[in-house]
This record gives sequence, C-alpha cells and structure tokens, in this order.
Amino acid sequence: MSQSRLRVGILGATGTVGQRFIVLLQNHPQFEITHLGASERSAGQTYKKIVRWKLSQSMPEDIGGLTVTLCDPAHFEGCSLVFSALDSSVAGPVEDAFARAGMAVFSNAKDHRMDPDVPILIPFCNPDHLDIIPHQQKSRGLTGNGYIITNANCASTGLVVALKPLQDAFGIDKVIVFTMQAVSGAGYPGVPSLDIYDNVVPYISGEEDKLHVEPRKILGRVDGGDTFVDYDVTLSAMCNRVPVIDGHTECVSIKLNKTATLEEVQKALKEFKPKLPALPSMPPVSLQLFEESDRPQPRLDRDLGRGYTVAVGGVRKCNVLDFKFTLLSHNCVIGAAGGSILNAELALVRGYLK
Amino acid sequence: MSQSRLRVGILGATGTVGQRFIVLLQNHPQFEITHLGASERSAGQTYKKIVRWKLSQSMPEDIGGLTVTLCDPAHFEGCSLVFSALDSSVAGPVEDAFARAGMAVFSNAKDHRMDPDVPILIPFCNPDHLDIIPHQQKSRGLTGNGYIITNANCASTGLVVALKPLQDAFGIDKVIVFTMQAVSGAGYPGVPSLDIYDNVVPYISGEEDKLHVEPRKILGRVDGGDTFVDYDVTLSAMCNRVPVIDGHTECVSIKLNKTATLEEVQKALKEFKPKLPALPSMPPVSLQLFEESDRPQPRLDRDLGRGYTVAVGGVRKCNVLDFKFTLLSHNCVIGAAGGSILNAELALVRGYLK
Amino acid sequence: MSQSRLRVGILGATGTVGQRFIVLLQNHPQFEITHLGASERSAGQTYKKIVRWKLSQSMPEDIGGLTVTLCDPAHFEGCSLVFSALDSSVAGPVEDAFARAGMAVFSNAKDHRMDPDVPILIPFCNPDHLDIIPHQQKSRGLTGNGYIITNANCASTGLVVALKPLQDAFGIDKVIVFTMQAVSGAGYPGVPSLDIYDNVVPYISGEEDKLHVEPRKILGRVDGGDTFVDYDVTLSAMCNRVPVIDGHTECVSIKLNKTATLEEVQKALKEFKPKLPALPSMPPVSLQLFEESDRPQPRLDRDLGRGYTVAVGGVRKCNVLDFKFTLLSHNCVIGAAGGSILNAELALVRGYLK
Amino acid sequence: MSQSRLRVGILGATGTVGQRFIVLLQNHPQFEITHLGASERSAGQTYKKIVRWKLSQSMPEDIGGLTVTLCDPAHFEGCSLVFSALDSSVAGPVEDAFARAGMAVFSNAKDHRMDPDVPILIPFCNPDHLDIIPHQQKSRGLTGNGYIITNANCASTGLVVALKPLQDAFGIDKVIVFTMQAVSGAGYPGVPSLDIYDNVVPYISGEEDKLHVEPRKILGRVDGGDTFVDYDVTLSAMCNRVPVIDGHTECVSIKLNKTATLEEVQKALKEFKPKLPALPSMPPVSLQLFEESDRPQPRLDRDLGRGYTVAVGGVRKCNVLDFKFTLLSHNCVIGAAGGSILNAELALVRGYLK
Repeated sequence: MSQSRLRVGILGATGTVGQRFIVLLQNHPQFEITHLGASERSAGQTYKKIVRWKLSQSMPEDIGGLTVTLCDPAHFEGCSLVFSALDSSVAGPVEDAFARAGMAVFSNAKDHRMDPDVPILIPFCNPDHLDIIPHQQKSRGLTGNGYIITNANCASTGLVVALKPLQDAFGIDKVIVFTMQAVSGAGYPGVPSLDIYDNVVPYISGEEDKLHVEPRKILGRVDGGDTFVDYDVTLSAMCNRVPVIDGHTECVSIKLNKTATLEEVQKALKEFKPKLPALPSMPPVSLQLFEESDRPQPRLDRDLGRGYTVAVGGVRKCNVLDFKFTLLSHNCVIGAAGGSILNAELALVRGYLK
Repeated sequence: MSQSRLRVGILGATGTVGQRFIVLLQNHPQFEITHLGASERSAGQTYKKIVRWKLSQSMPEDIGGLTVTLCDPAHFEGCSLVFSALDSSVAGPVEDAFARAGMAVFSNAKDHRMDPDVPILIPFCNPDHLDIIPHQQKSRGLTGNGYIITNANCASTGLVVALKPLQDAFGIDKVIVFTMQAVSGAGYPGVPSLDIYDNVVPYISGEEDKLHVEPRKILGRVDGGDTFVDYDVTLSAMCNRVPVIDGHTECVSIKLNKTATLEEVQKALKEFKPKLPALPSMPPVSLQLFEESDRPQPRLDRDLGRGYTVAVGGVRKCNVLDFKFTLLSHNCVIGAAGGSILNAELALVRGYLK
Repeated sequence: MSQSRLRVGILGATGTVGQRFIVLLQNHPQFEITHLGASERSAGQTYKKIVRWKLSQSMPEDIGGLTVTLCDPAHFEGCSLVFSALDSSVAGPVEDAFARAGMAVFSNAKDHRMDPDVPILIPFCNPDHLDIIPHQQKSRGLTGNGYIITNANCASTGLVVALKPLQDAFGIDKVIVFTMQAVSGAGYPGVPSLDIYDNVVPYISGEEDKLHVEPRKILGRVDGGDTFVDYDVTLSAMCNRVPVIDGHTECVSIKLNKTATLEEVQKALKEFKPKLPALPSMPPVSLQLFEESDRPQPRLDRDLGRGYTVAVGGVRKCNVLDFKFTLLSHNCVIGAAGGSILNAELALVRGYLK
Repeated sequence: MSQSRLRVGILGATGTVGQRFIVLLQNHPQFEITHLGASERSAGQTYKKIVRWKLSQSMPEDIGGLTVTLCDPAHFEGCSLVFSALDSSVAGPVEDAFARAGMAVFSNAKDHRMDPDVPILIPFCNPDHLDIIPHQQKSRGLTGNGYIITNANCASTGLVVALKPLQDAFGIDKVIVFTMQAVSGAGYPGVPSLDIYDNVVPYISGEEDKLHVEPRKILGRVDGGDTFVDYDVTLSAMCNRVPVIDGHTECVSIKLNKTATLEEVQKALKEFKPKLPALPSMPPVSLQLFEESDRPQPRLDRDLGRGYTVAVGGVRKCNVLDFKFTLLSHNCVIGAAGGSILNAELALVRGYLK
C-alpha cells in the first residue's frame, strides 16, 4: 500500500501536536509519514530517542526509527505535503520556505491565518475556501503543490462548526462565547501543575482576539476567486483554562438574524450535514446534538467520532440574546492535528495534491 | 467572655456548610455555639463521634464534645438565633418552627428566599432589606427574635456584590453570566469523583433559575416597609461544575443603562464601600479589584479577607454588550456560612437580636 | 456471525464494571450479550433509559435497546454463561443460583474467591486452576455449564502477573507492596470528589487483607484435582487511593528464594510468556517491561494492549529486601471485566463451555 | 518591635520556597526580613513587580516594596542571617560566600547536607547537632555568625520525625519507605500539568538516594564535638509524584531492634516530646498520632500546627517486617522553609546568633 500513498513530512514532530499527527496518520490510506522535522537540538537522531512521548496511544514502531532532520525543505525531498505543528514563534518563514519548494503546507500555526490569500479551512464549514489556492499560488509565484492552508485556533474550530448550521438557517448577528479550555492546548511543558490544579485561570494570551476575528473569516465567502469577504457577525469571547486534559468546552449565547423557535434551532443543529465528498477521516457525524441537559462533557464526549465530532447540548432560550448552548470539541484532534488532516484529504479529493 | 455572648444553634451541623459555620464562629465575640441539630441518625451522640469532618481546619475541641439533637426548637432552649445549613428538602417547615419559637433563623436554604416578606440579605449590597423584618413578624405573627433571613445562592452572592457598584454608578440593563463552580457547593458526598475529575459538567440543577431571579430581588428595594420591588435587570446564566474544591469563578458581560468609559467602570468597582457599620466578620475590603488580566483565580484568591472578600478582575470592553469581567467568591464563606454570619452580625447591630 | 456465538448475560449491568463488560464484549467473536440483569429499580426498562453511562467509549446501540431484567436465572434462558459485576453485598447467593441453573458464572465479586473449590483464575498465571471445575461441579451437584470462576481483586491481579515470572525463575519468599489505586476501582458514585481531589486516602476497606491471601492461592497449585495448595509467600500490603481515574500503580519490594542478579530478574520479566492457547482478547504482550526509570505511568500506559497488558518498570536493587519495581495494571480491564472475559475465553477453548 | 529583631535576608526569594519564607516570617517576633536576593534578571526591581506569587496567602505589603538584589553578601549588610531557598545548581558557593561574610546560613539546598562539618538539623530530632558549629567555624575559618546549617530533604524530614520516637524506644534496624509527594516539592514551574494530572510518576530524580543517607546522619550523633557518626539503620525508598498540591504522604514499614507490641509502638509515637526549649514557631504537637485508619490525609491534615506538625496514622503490624504506618508532612513548611526557621530559632536560643 505504501507505494501509492503520498509522502508526508511533519514539522515540529516532537511536540504534542506533532505526536498527535503521528498517531492520527497511523495506517492512513492516502498519506505516509516519511520525514520528521524538529529543532537543531533533535536533528540527526532517531525520533524514538529524542521525543518525550506524552500520548496514551503508543508511538508507532516504524515512526520511532525515523531520523529527525531540521525543518528545511532540502531535507524533505519527495514529500508532497507537510503538516506543520510548529510554534508560532518560528512557523511563518519556515512554512513559506516549504511552499516555495513546491510542498503543500497544512498548518496549525496562527502566522498565516489572517493572510488575505490563505484560507482558514474547516471542511465541515467552508470547503469552498479552497478556491483561493490558485490565486494564492499565482500571487506568491508558487508552483506544484506549493501553497499554505491553515486550520483555525482550537477554540474557534468548535465554535464555527456549531454556528454554521445556524448561519445557514437563520443568519447570526451576535455571539458571546465563554470557553473552558484543556491544558493540552498549551502544549508541553505548557501549563505548570501549580497553576491549574484546583484552579481556573481566566486568561489565555491572545486567545480572545482570535475568537473575535477567525470565525468571521471562516464563515465568510470567497469573492471572485481572490478575495475573502468576512461574515458580518459580532463576537465577544472570555477564555479560561480549566483542569481538563483534553477537550475544550464552550458556552455560547447567540442572537440570530431572524426569529426562530427552539425546535427550529435544535432541528438545524441536528440535521446538519457538511457538503463534502467522502474523506477517510470524516466522522460518522460532524455535529452531534445531545438532548440531555448535562452533556456534552469532556471526559465522556471528547472522543466521539475519534475526536473529529463536535458535540452540542443544552440548547435553550437566552433571556438576553436569543439562544444559548454548550459545545465541546477535542482540541487536539478536530481542533488541531485532525483538522489539518481533513484539510489535506479534502485538498487531495479536490485535485490540489499530487 | 462566654457569658455575654448570644447562644447560637446550628441546624444541619454535620454537613459541610454546618462544619463551615463551626469553624467561622470559633472565638466569635458575639455568638457562642451551644446547640447542634442534625437528623435522627445522629441525635443523641457527641458531635465528634458522628461527624465526618471534611475541612482542612481542625474541628474545635469544645464543639466536638457537644451532644447533637434533633432539629426541634424544644431542644434549643436559650438560643437567640440559629444558623440553618439544612438541605432544602427539609429546611422550609423546620425554619418556620424555629421562627415561631422566637428564634431568629439565618438560613442558607433556598426555601424561603422568594417569600414576599423574607429578605435575601447581603450586607455589602442591601442592608436596608432588614427593614422588612417588622412586617414579616407582624404578618406571620412572630414574636421575640422570631423571623427568617436568608442569604443568596452561592453563585448569586458573588455576582450581586460585583454588580452593586455598577448599579449605583450607571444602572444595569442586561447581564450574561457564565459560572465555573466548585465541587464544595454540592456538599458531601456531593459530586462523585468520576463525574468531575478531568471533566466539566455544564449543568447544575435549578442553579440558572436562581441566578435569573435572586439578583433582581437583592438589588431591588423595600417599598413602604412591606413590599420588595425587584430591580429591573434581565439576566441569563449558564452554570458549570468544574474540578475546583472551593471558589466559584464567574465570567460576566453587562449592558449598562448609561454610557461609561472603562476607567469609570474600574473606578466604580475599585472605590466600592458598603454602607455598613463595623461588623466583626467584615473583611478589610469587600470587593477587591485586580489589575492583572489573569486574576482572580480560585486557588490564589478565594481566601482573600478570610473568604469574605469578592474579587473582580479582567475588566474590559465587550463587543456585544458593554463590559465584561471575571469575579471570584468563596462559595462556602461569603457565599454560604460566612454570609449568614454577616447577616446575624448586622441584625445584632441594628437591634434585631437580643 | 451472531448465531454461532454463545449467549451471554451481564449481572449488575448498570454499574461501571457492567458497562465495561459491555464495551469490551462489543463485536466479540465468541460471545454475544443477550441478557442484562440489574436491581428491581431498573428491571423492565430499556438499558439505555436507566443506565448512567460513565465510560468515554459510547454505549453500543444494540445493547441500549435491551430490556433489563432482575438477576434471576429464570430471566436468562438460553444463556450459556453470565459475567457477574454484582456488588459483593448481593453477589454470593445470586451467583450460586445461576450456577445451579446450569450457567457458568465468571465473577468479579469477592464472595466465592476463597471457597475451597472455586478458582481465582488469571490465565496469564494459573490456567491450570481450571482443573478444579469438575470437582466443583461434582461436590456442589452442578450440571451443564454450571460452575463459578472468580477473578482476583484488581490490585492482586497486577501483582501476581508481575510476580509469576519471578516465582518461576527464583521462587519468592516475601513481598511488600504499596498501592496507589484509581477511583474507578470504587465504582459509581464511589469516591466523593471532596475526598480525593488534591488528596490521598491511605486506606481502602478490606483491600490489604485481599492482597495478603489472594496471591498465595493464585500462585499455588491444584493438588489431585480437588485441593488448592497455597504458594508459601508472605505478603504485606499498604493500600492508598489516589486522584487517578483508571490504572492501579503498585510499588513492590521482594525477597527471592535464591540469589539473582538484576539482569537475571529483568530477563525473567522481559521474557515472560504465559502458557496459553490463542485467546481473542489476549494482548500482544502480557507483561511489558519498561527500561525508563519513570515508567509505567497510569495516564500513559494503562491502555497498553487495550488494558490487558500489565506494565512493569524501575526494576532495581532494594537495600532491605532483594529487588524493587513499579507495576501498573488497568483495574477495570485486566483487573476486572477484561480478566473475566479472558477466563471465559480460556474456559471455552478448554472445553468447559458449550 | 522591628528594632529589636535580627535582620534577615532571603536568598532565592522569588521562588516558591522563597515565597513560603516570606509568608512564614510575617510578624515574626525575632526575625525581620530586610533583604531579598534573586538572580540577575530580577535584581534592581521591587519584589512586587517581578515575583510570580503562587501562594494562597497574600504577599505582605511591606515585602512587596523591597528592592531585590543579587545574592552577593555585599548587598546584605546588616543581616545576621540568611535563609537560602536557592536551587542546588547554584546554592553551594553562594552559601559559602555568605558564611565567610559572617552571616549564618540556614539552607534548604542539598549542596552542603553531607559535608562532614555541616549539620542536617531538625530540632524535633537532633537539636544537639548544633554542637558541631564551633568545629565548623574553626575548620573553615569562619567568624561572627558565619556558619551553615541545612535542613533535610522534604521527604526525609517527615520520615525522621516519625522514626525518632521509635529509635529512642526500640532502636530501628530496617526501613522501607514509599512516598507520594506533592507537586509543590518541585517548585515553579516544576511539574507540567500534562505529566501529573490523572497520573502518578513513579520517579523523582535523586530523591531515593537522599532518603537512603540523610536519615542515617540525622538520627546519628556528634562525637567529640567534631564528628558525625551515622545511625546504623538500612533504608530503602521508592519515591512517587502524585497529583497533590502540598503535603508528602509516606507509607513506612520498619524492623525494630527489639520486640515491641503494637500498643508500645503507638504509645511511643503518641507521647513523643522533642527535647527543646520554647521556640516561636513550635507547633503545639510535633507529632500527632491519628487513631482513625484512614488518616492522615494531605488535604485534611497538612496544615496541622500551621504545617509544622508531622502526622502519623494507621499504625499496624507488618507481615514482613515488624510494623507499618502512614505519615504526612507539609513539604513546604516543616519540610522546607518552616524547618529552616525552626533551625534559626533554635540557634538563637542556644546563643549561636547575635
């Protein structure tokens, strides 16, 4: 099987998002990890020797034996695409270099998200944002598979998946969102135990700003093949870190553009089907609606659809805006590595990867 | 000292709120615990023998030796007042019986909170609601110290303390509040560890309704000595249980009645001083305003003012309403037992206790 | 496939161990769950309606639709065997009744463990203890599949799997074992969060006694087909509950019967292979030896071999006895439901189930 | 009051142990903090500005205003003594420099613990080890208050306090100790939350070795005023990190030098009184013996005696050695900063500080 699969590199392979890419791509029918990039400290050694593995799933044997290289396109010959789990402090120029070298870059970093020719792609919501790629390649002089596609901030991802069916059915005017985010969102070593055990930290640097702007771009449209037009919705976010390992929970109040009953809102959420071809990592259900008032819960529901499903529950009337509900998404799967994998699968089926 | 102190009983003395009363009243200059009431299972035995002590402060030696009785006024002779830590499933009629027997009842239970002649008293906010007591006694035919004063739901308490200075300065139109509540709020055994460890539960039975109505009564006024007039504010709450032992954190967005700058809002919070005489349990500061964006945090700040201080931080503009901020209150002290103690201290200084 | 599978009932199906049986038996090639037994409160209703599902794996759809009955053999017609997840307060006579009705009983309860004709079966360690069954049937007058097989206490299980290779190679004289046990071991609601969050409880009722006697029986032999002869080893246990969801960690110091080098001890552990035919639920490795000094760890290693593998690490010399090491086992899988499933699989392949 | 108090400096004042010194010395009758030392990064700024305060007790106002200096004796003029909370990577030579400058050094670092002329002082156990100081000063050519006194590793401290009464009464031959240590023992940022949440780490670098040697020195004697003679006891330790914030729990099995009954062992523990003059920070009880089998527990008992009391419980026979029990000590108070403060108080009363 390996010969027919596209060769794939992981940038930032030793971090927790890099590790998640490795687990999620194990036995993937279309992609085969052949290259691992990390920092100078790790380069030249086998992955198994230098990684501090932090996932409960075991490290795949074959990956452990790969030799880690620097994140330089020269070391990634033969790769069709790379998944970038790089820290935003270094991601920007490295990702540019890989795109210029003709490799598709599927990035978790924030650096290029707001570039006017780079999509924040969430296949459940805005698969047509792929249409910007020809323009991006032309304007940047990129060739082959050379282009950059980002996924959204982990908290933005769950939010827009829950908002999308409501946008389609009623239009959305205003959103107030409160988050309770898992510690795995901060990577490793990330959040010190003394900061979060028996505690809540009501602040995550830069997070609220991302929630104010990313959903507007994601829920917007591509105009004339070369311009993103934001969706006109006003968002206000309050972000908190809580003592949960995986799974971001968000409480959302929304004001719609037109009157709707509670039943109509629940129906729109329940019947949501993304407009997508079959993709290998697609979960059976993109958005699962719970009728129990005390769900979703991260420990019980974050692994729905192997972490690719967004869960919504507790839909009810809001006294101040129109409706409110709770959503949950696995911040490391659909909100990070898994989201990028879906993006690459979509790019492949749409003919953007060879 | 003991002879000049008022004799006090604790109803529901074996539960975690009952334990908290015992710790907070240790060495109190005005009140002396002389009676402990609990259920049939415990009656007739020494407190030390039957209590499952769950606080990190040690049980006072002298209290451990008291014999527990049933919660029947006949067993509480000589008490001027009782603090009720009874479960709401039984509190209502028991509290009525104590009031009829001429003892003041300071209750944590919800049963009488919305009675039209019973105040929800929070001295930092509405000390004048005590003025309803003569009317309550008259209408119910109560004599001596016989009356009922409740404190608010633990999540309502922190909220109204933070809202009060903003109500005074600008008026408040709308409030969206999202809570992250500690497990101690559910008592003992309360929340099973399998339900909350590495988890968030986005639902607390009945809690949101309390947050929708109690603040309106607390922030309202007493009209003509016999009628509560609600404050006209619309609230919407989303309540969550999080893995924190003590301390309720709440994220709040508000719409004011008149335009204000961020500086004016911060100033109103910072300069808030309750209109109160000196009370033994009053903290140095009722509302502490943090300038750091990542505070307050429950583990670091719940013990401010020995748990009697409400902390507010992260005050900033809200894109959807006007302003937003985070607040923290110790749900077992100012939000429960401590709040009742302040109420009794205020009743004493105002001449309602003999 | 379903027609060729044996029909299986679960006793105590609504508890957390019952739920674990349901998840582990999903798509099992030999066993098909057809009956669910629970208490009077649940009987007559569909499983989906009355269970409080607490596992992160979803409840299988088909099981959710089954109607729950009382744990009476009359309701389990057509079952070849039952798995008992009953609480020990009721398990004894109920299990007897099922055995008398000709159904094999694979039990997690302690009630029959020390019966002189009932094996505590752990296929990795003592598969030949099955040889007692004919004697058990004869002495109790049981027919058909009617007999009782127990598995060990969850903490005993991991311990004996780690001891077995050392017993085989060197003989074991003395064992001191300290446990750090997960909260899931106490079922649901089980351990209150106020008891275990930010805490350790240095006591689990009855647990140390089980660790003193069960390993002696398990590591012993069946003499003449009708008598268990204990293995002559002295054990001392100190049991603790720690804030971990799943996975019992145990620190062990041992004195061997003959001199051994550290390398010989590590080799015995590393090369351990149970003397077993292929069983559907057998993990690739029964005992995994870690060379890293900081492993095994429950969050990282409890799911090895889908929870059927016991992990050992940190093997080193002991200044007081001979050697010491750390072991980890998934208390709900190999230490409970999974252990029983292995027992039934072994009974089937050995011809004890039809 | 301040004029009659000795002036005190804190080395490593910004770390969590430094913060603990500051809280514990607030309002101390004999010592007044006048100098704070930290690294180059912090020097020259006010303490309030650069510290990341991590304790639930508020930072004392007056300390917040002090200007931090480098840890150079030249900046500590007028100090009689310094408390060293320095990391062991730098503590050794810095502490030497302060001693040479005539200041008494009370150190938490391990660097000098095993020096043949430096005591590991625990006033409850070995107050006479102070007698080595004249020899230390002479052999090192130190003058004035110049000398170094260390306290023990946090896990050693609790252990030797529990062993001391048994050593006195029966003599101790062998000890097996298994620890469950709090995350605060690793300082800040210390243990990443991803490493310890829902987890146990069965390894703490270098810790077991300390437990093998420090108790032998502490329980030993000073011979001829110039030589430490170890106590002849063999120890074996297994150290674990658990998800607890403060408080080290240890399970201990011991073999005594002579036969004793359980009652005699309990009596020795219960009646233990250190041979000490009154010291300001002495707790009412040095060693508290619990009769309940499930105590001590860190959340409930770590603050006994304001963290200066060591708690012991669950004393029972051991099948392998003689007796076993559980002990708990507050690793940041009696096991770290508080231990050093007691040492300084003892040095003062014994005439070693002016």
